[in-house]
Amino acid sequence: MIKVGLLGAGRIAGVHAMSVTRNPDSSLVAVSDFIPENAEKLASQYGCSARNTDEIIADPNIDAVLIATSTDTHSELIEQSVAAGKAVFCEKPVDLSLERARLCYSNIKAASLPIMIGFNRRFDPNFKALKFALDAGEVGKAELLSITSFDPAPPPLAYIKVSGGLFKDMMIHDFDMVNFLFGGLPKSIMVSASSIIDKKISELGDYDTAVATLKYADGRLVVIKNSRRAAYGYDQRIEILGSKGLLQVQNVVEDDIIKSTEMGVQSSNPEYFFLERYKAAYKKEWAAFVSAVQMKTTVPITLADGISALAMAEAAAVSAKAGSEVELANFL
Amino acid sequence: MIKVGLLGAGRIAGVHAMSVTRNPDSSLVAVSDFIPENAEKLASQYGCSARNTDEIIADPNIDAVLIATSTDTHSELIEQSVAAGKAVFCEKPVDLSLERARLCYSNIKAASLPIMIGFNRRFDPNFKALKFALDAGEVGKAELLSITSFDPAPPPLAYIKVSGGLFKDMMIHDFDMVNFLFGGLPKSIMVSASSIIDKKISELGDYDTAVATLKYADGRLVVIKNSRRAAYGYDQRIEILGSKGLLQVQNVVEDDIIKSTEMGVQSSNPEYFFLERYKAAYKKEWAAFVSAVQMKTTVPITLADGISALAMAEAAAVSAKAGSEVELANFL
Amino acid sequence: MIKVGLLGAGRIAGVHAMSVTRNPDSSLVAVSDFIPENAEKLASQYGCSARNTDEIIADPNIDAVLIATSTDTHSELIEQSVAAGKAVFCEKPVDLSLERARLCYSNIKAASLPIMIGFNRRFDPNFKALKFALDAGEVGKAELLSITSFDPAPPPLAYIKVSGGLFKDMMIHDFDMVNFLFGGLPKSIMVSASSIIDKKISELGDYDTAVATLKYADGRLVVIKNSRRAAYGYDQRIEILGSKGLLQVQNVVEDDIIKSTEMGVQSSNPEYFFLERYKAAYKKEWAAFVSAVQMKTTVPITLADGISALAMAEAAAVSAKAGSEVELANFL
Amino acid sequence: MIKVGLLGAGRIAGVHAMSVTRNPDSSLVAVSDFIPENAEKLASQYGCSARNTDEIIADPNIDAVLIATSTDTHSELIEQSVAAGKAVFCEKPVDLSLERARLCYSNIKAASLPIMIGFNRRFDPNFKALKFALDAGEVGKAELLSITSFDPAPPPLAYIKVSGGLFKDMMIHDFDMVNFLFGGLPKSIMVSASSIIDKKISELGDYDTAVATLKYADGRLVVIKNSRRAAYGYDQRIEILGSKGLLQVQNVVEDDIIKSTEMGVQSSNPEYFFLERYKAAYKKEWAAFVSAVQMKTTVPITLADGISALAMAEAAAVSAKAGSEVELANFL
Repeated sequence: MIKVGLLGAGRIAGVHAMSVTRNPDSSLVAVSDFIPENAEKLASQYGCSARNTDEIIADPNIDAVLIATSTDTHSELIEQSVAAGKAVFCEKPVDLSLERARLCYSNIKAASLPIMIGFNRRFDPNFKALKFALDAGEVGKAELLSITSFDPAPPPLAYIKVSGGLFKDMMIHDFDMVNFLFGGLPKSIMVSASSIIDKKISELGDYDTAVATLKYADGRLVVIKNSRRAAYGYDQRIEILGSKGLLQVQNVVEDDIIKSTEMGVQSSNPEYFFLERYKAAYKKEWAAFVSAVQMKTTVPITLADGISALAMAEAAAVSAKAGSEVELANFL
Repeated sequence: MIKVGLLGAGRIAGVHAMSVTRNPDSSLVAVSDFIPENAEKLASQYGCSARNTDEIIADPNIDAVLIATSTDTHSELIEQSVAAGKAVFCEKPVDLSLERARLCYSNIKAASLPIMIGFNRRFDPNFKALKFALDAGEVGKAELLSITSFDPAPPPLAYIKVSGGLFKDMMIHDFDMVNFLFGGLPKSIMVSASSIIDKKISELGDYDTAVATLKYADGRLVVIKNSRRAAYGYDQRIEILGSKGLLQVQNVVEDDIIKSTEMGVQSSNPEYFFLERYKAAYKKEWAAFVSAVQMKTTVPITLADGISALAMAEAAAVSAKAGSEVELANFL
Repeated sequence: MIKVGLLGAGRIAGVHAMSVTRNPDSSLVAVSDFIPENAEKLASQYGCSARNTDEIIADPNIDAVLIATSTDTHSELIEQSVAAGKAVFCEKPVDLSLERARLCYSNIKAASLPIMIGFNRRFDPNFKALKFALDAGEVGKAELLSITSFDPAPPPLAYIKVSGGLFKDMMIHDFDMVNFLFGGLPKSIMVSASSIIDKKISELGDYDTAVATLKYADGRLVVIKNSRRAAYGYDQRIEILGSKGLLQVQNVVEDDIIKSTEMGVQSSNPEYFFLERYKAAYKKEWAAFVSAVQMKTTVPITLADGISALAMAEAAAVSAKAGSEVELANFL
Repeated sequence: MIKVGLLGAGRIAGVHAMSVTRNPDSSLVAVSDFIPENAEKLASQYGCSARNTDEIIADPNIDAVLIATSTDTHSELIEQSVAAGKAVFCEKPVDLSLERARLCYSNIKAASLPIMIGFNRRFDPNFKALKFALDAGEVGKAELLSITSFDPAPPPLAYIKVSGGLFKDMMIHDFDMVNFLFGGLPKSIMVSASSIIDKKISELGDYDTAVATLKYADGRLVVIKNSRRAAYGYDQRIEILGSKGLLQVQNVVEDDIIKSTEMGVQSSNPEYFFLERYKAAYKKEWAAFVSAVQMKTTVPITLADGISALAMAEAAAVSAKAGSEVELANFL
């Protein structure tokens, strides 16, 4: 049984609190938050104690720290937790600053403790099955990977301000998915981006709609399409063209009912957003972490993986601004 | 917190043990089985005690009895449990003998304790949504209801011998679904049945493939198609033609991946069998029972409902043999 | 080049006039109709002459007679045409009277001229592909065939009066499809029918909604569902459960566009009615007739096939009234 | 009745010969080809005369010239035909040289005769319906357009050598589709391209897989994905994300049969290639030309439209080589 201290008590922390509690091999011991009342509320909901962050990290009784605080605190909390000998599970992204993330990496690499970054989508049953089918050669050699990743609605402008921008906040998931599916990093990236949904997003220097094209050294191409708004729900589709065919992951829908009337044949919307769509994935990523800690095996998504995705996001931002292809090597 | 004693430790009892344990408002206290080792095994898995049936029913500490024994014991166990003042959840069917089930009903009706029959499919999210859409008039007035209900593979002949036959074992689920969706009983039933999958099933006096047509007094028609074998998995579809359109519940599939190759465009099979397909339904039916017991509201599926479905099954068997329509009134 | 005289100038005659004209191996020479103006209108549209029926049948220049008049005239016109040495293509059904149809058969059988009955659905590309897949054993041995056949809207009551009723007018298509797919006649039939769409249909002694169950001597079962109204369009689906899987023909839809909005995911309605849905089938059935006449091969749908379907329709009407299974042998 | 002279007797000329012949308002008078035997063969098939190109253009009896020769002859044949006072229908692309196409334009613009470029896909019923739904505001304001356009198999290397390359031969269709759907030209284009299917294509200086991203002045984005090989057939899908939803055109499939077995649920492949997929479109584009000529209305796809698409193809080739965004204004 792994005893877990949870740092952060916001929305995503709530998701993780449930995963920790429901997993038969982990228990939630304590929660902290920048706003103590939030920590208390979550703690009482899950029957654990609300403490401050330093106490949790210092507690010798706690085996693992789960970092779900604001992104700008991640690197430091990883370092402190590792210094205290804890296994660490940290939400994505590692940091908003690629440099700071790299410093974190070099600061903690000697410790060789399990540190896992929470790219939950790798644990989605559909995407896992996609990876399996791809690796099994079901469509031959991969040539062109396409990711459609649209949120249902843009976040508040206040969030966008601190989010690190579309590439580090949203497309970073897709960058990690590319690395996961293709098992390695692309060579270059080229981005075209707009703020067509809301001009205020543009005033913040950010984009709401973007297309990234990535190229691998062997010629494989990747397209990632992001939009902050899809009126019909969370659109999360992937397709891979290979030498022998096409693999597609369709959206997961709310139910399997079809209604046919004079007005047309109507089926259900995709699951509304990430909490619904990736419910199983959150549960399974936590199980994977617990298993790696207990079995002393490598975690499935390392800090280096988190840094790779962050480097791609930074390269994407540069490409979008410059209007030209950039070599990823310059960011690694 | 409702304390539950589970009678039976077979496959379906295992499903219920998990529902009881995972529900935050119920706890599994004891298990019994005809074969004591089975009870012990299940008990040790869920950390409760293995006892004999009489002890469980007599235990004043136990609030509710969950009956998951062989069908021929149901009526008596319901009567004993009610006599002991317990709330009762009983697996379908109520009994193999319609007469015995009616006797059970008259023996316990004075007690006015909650007795719920486990027609789990009513709690399937898709079928609930279907019922909701129908009642909301989304396709106008219902005219023709069609249920496709195929098992992936026939059970062992040994099971078929004691099952009560296709109508009481398998189609009874569909009869209850008809009553649930249309909110009342049909007037007549007409069945055509075969044993085309396995002649040995015919030698046991049973069928493996059957079509039942039911008619309501107001002219609504229902078709139920049953087969003991669908090589592609558990086929569980429903459609309702109404005056303004058609509602269809499609199969729930294993994943949302499509593979296109020279050989065609391939998507995934339906969930293999009832444990996978109705996973959520089993959990929700138990929650509904717990809620009814705690809130002292009527259980959503009464003993009378169980007897109605059983009467339809008996009428079906008579019709299949006679090759003619039979009035349901003769069986109520 | 086959020279064709068309008897009848109504809606279905118009469909055939186009097939005859567009087929490179047939030409439309003359048209007749009970209402001469109708014949003139159609004749002028296709650049042929309007004559009376007797003249057409007597014309030595005409090779084939296409009978698209009202059903009660079919038998006589077949007999006259055969007596005049013509090849005959006759719309379904052969007759409203099974007895009269049998008399027609015995009257003309000595002539051994090509006589084809227009069960156009056999030539639908989807149903042909279904037949091919079935015969190729793609789903093993057939066990249960289901036909859904709903019209978009009921015909006028005036039409229903002279139609011969649901079974001879509408379900007869499905009976022929059963014989086509299974390559032989069932043993018995059992029908449950209602008039739930329009009570006036009931007052005419007819039904608007019906379910027929057919059984073959070897145990294969068939379900046919008919409704005179499907608000969403012409619903024409077939599925066959076999020992190794399921074959389904889906509806043919108006276009391949999907619209996803907050309101759901909407695709297109089925083609509205038979003229659209079976456009290709009408063309191909005519080509099959022309080819059989030219190549002197057996026509693909014989008068005997037409009589078989009619016998099933008559048996269906008897079963619906009696509420019991009837043996088809009594009607052959 | 428009009398038509057809220049060219290759595969696409054969498609047009059928359209001309089947259209009730046009007739095929003569065919020419670089290889006279080809012209004779096609002429005898359609019952018209085989002549040389100059005779056809000079014939005062001929109203319209249909140019389906090799692309390098298009500009000159347009000029000659216009000089002879003919209406002109010319296959895409206008020319391989943007400069030559522009010269052609300035040479003939005074004549004001109908000149239509054969971008057949604009006449595909699905894409027309897409355009209609988009313009009707069914998904609000367009933001992101995605075109998937994969051929089933690469053409012979001999063809690739003279094709003008992927952008002028294949993606030019998609560029025209962008202009058609959005009713105007994008501002910039950015391309990433590979030859991953066949290295010999790379040796010819061409690509077999490419992703183009186009940006409009108002921020709308477009992604075009091209591959010379899709083992499962001709993949022709379009989707448009708008402020209120998503419009998708799915592939047109070979039939509507679904086969479910132990191995999965299998539906049919897309139509194999352009002759099958765009059969109706070829017929309708010709009808549109005939109608414009007869009604003296503007042709739906002008020479200027053809030049716009060609300019986009040229810009795409420059971008792919340079690895940077290029402004389309530099190519207009």
